[in-house]
Amino acid sequence: MDLYDVINRRRDTRREFTGAGVAPDVLTRVLSAAHAAPSVGLSQPWDFVLVRDPARLASFHDHVATEREVFAASLSGERAETFSRIRIEGIRESGLGVVVGYDPDRGGPNVLGRHAIADAGLYSVVCAIQNLWLAASAEGLGVGWVSFYREEFLRYLVAMPEHIRPVAWLCVGEVAELPDAPDLERCGWRHRSPLDSVVHQESYGRRSIDISASAPIA
Amino acid sequence: MDLYDVINRRRDTRREFTGAGVAPDVLTRVLSAAHAAPSVGLSQPWDFVLVRDPARLASFHDHVATEREVFAASLSGERAETFSRIRIEGIRESGLGVVVGYDPDRGGPNVLGRHAIADAGLYSVVCAIQNLWLAASAEGLGVGWVSFYREEFLRYLVAMPEHIRPVAWLCVGEVAELPDAPDLERCGWRHRSPLDSVVHQESYGRRSIDISASAPIA
Repeated sequence: MDLYDVINRRRDTRREFTGAGVAPDVLTRVLSAAHAAPSVGLSQPWDFVLVRDPARLASFHDHVATEREVFAASLSGERAETFSRIRIEGIRESGLGVVVGYDPDRGGPNVLGRHAIADAGLYSVVCAIQNLWLAASAEGLGVGWVSFYREEFLRYLVAMPEHIRPVAWLCVGEVAELPDAPDLERCGWRHRSPLDSVVHQESYGRRSIDISASAPIA
Repeated sequence: MDLYDVINRRRDTRREFTGAGVAPDVLTRVLSAAHAAPSVGLSQPWDFVLVRDPARLASFHDHVATEREVFAASLSGERAETFSRIRIEGIRESGLGVVVGYDPDRGGPNVLGRHAIADAGLYSVVCAIQNLWLAASAEGLGVGWVSFYREEFLRYLVAMPEHIRPVAWLCVGEVAELPDAPDLERCGWRHRSPLDSVVHQESYGRRSIDISASAPIA
């Protein structure tokens, strides 16, 4: 599928999982796409733990439900009411959780490109997640990134060593459809902004409708 | 271009920039792809500062050269010798730097999905970077992510407010070619690992060649 079509079709999925399993060859292509991501110093510092056991999925679901309550308690009025209608996960329905970890020890003691920016390794892991997400979308799968959890809980759940940081739980599975608009937009939580609002010329705050024109320097 | 072709063609570019400018419509498509990335709570917390001024490019180049020396001083023997042959940036040659920032204030006081994972906003910004990188690759452009810099220097260079964190300097420009293998592999710095080495079943450390088979729980 064409890259731009995939980028525009990709959604954060919570509701649409059918529960059908992902075929092995499809999953291999999706994970290979993740593993082909850029990484600082070619460290490839990611791990993918595939979770399918119903008891483990249920355990994570219960933890996320508790964290949902924590967030809900911080809201009031319209925000609280709107949030009450929003689904935040499809952990059990998707049937597959991909837990993505960051291993800072990968790549030896001198990771090229990380001495000044410690988080560069973490950034590499997220590049892999985005590759995974796009590949899954191209394969007609849904992906939902769940972030209502405590890292120490997730590390314990999949027995990650202390030095590895859990970065994401991704619900991955077959979907009935990928909706045209993000769930949070359809629910009235928040709307997408125009591109112009995030593009600046030469220095922050200098906006221009014509992004080809470079503004003179102050 | 097909997604998987793009994912496999994408390289981290330092050497191959021709210096030709990026056409405005192409740049708009590439930035629109970034802006279509997933974001926690639909916060879209990214900013893109387009830097073309030669004086500013030269200033950043000089700063990166200093940081290269810092890293070089940490190496010895074969590592030092191998690193001496590696180019780490094409800041002036690309003719365009895209400075990507993370604005944690975007999305209001209650960003859905960020209460337990503070870095979730940062992760969103990296998803946008990976979309940008893939779109640029599909357009035949090269992208080089430079991380030999201090964040405070880059923030000052493009006048980012204190609360915005610079996440990346991306060299973006026309390239003569995109090589088949990563630069760091061709230079003998490090090699790509097999997919099996990063995939686990149910819990960390349980490896399987057949990634479709779920291992029993301990």
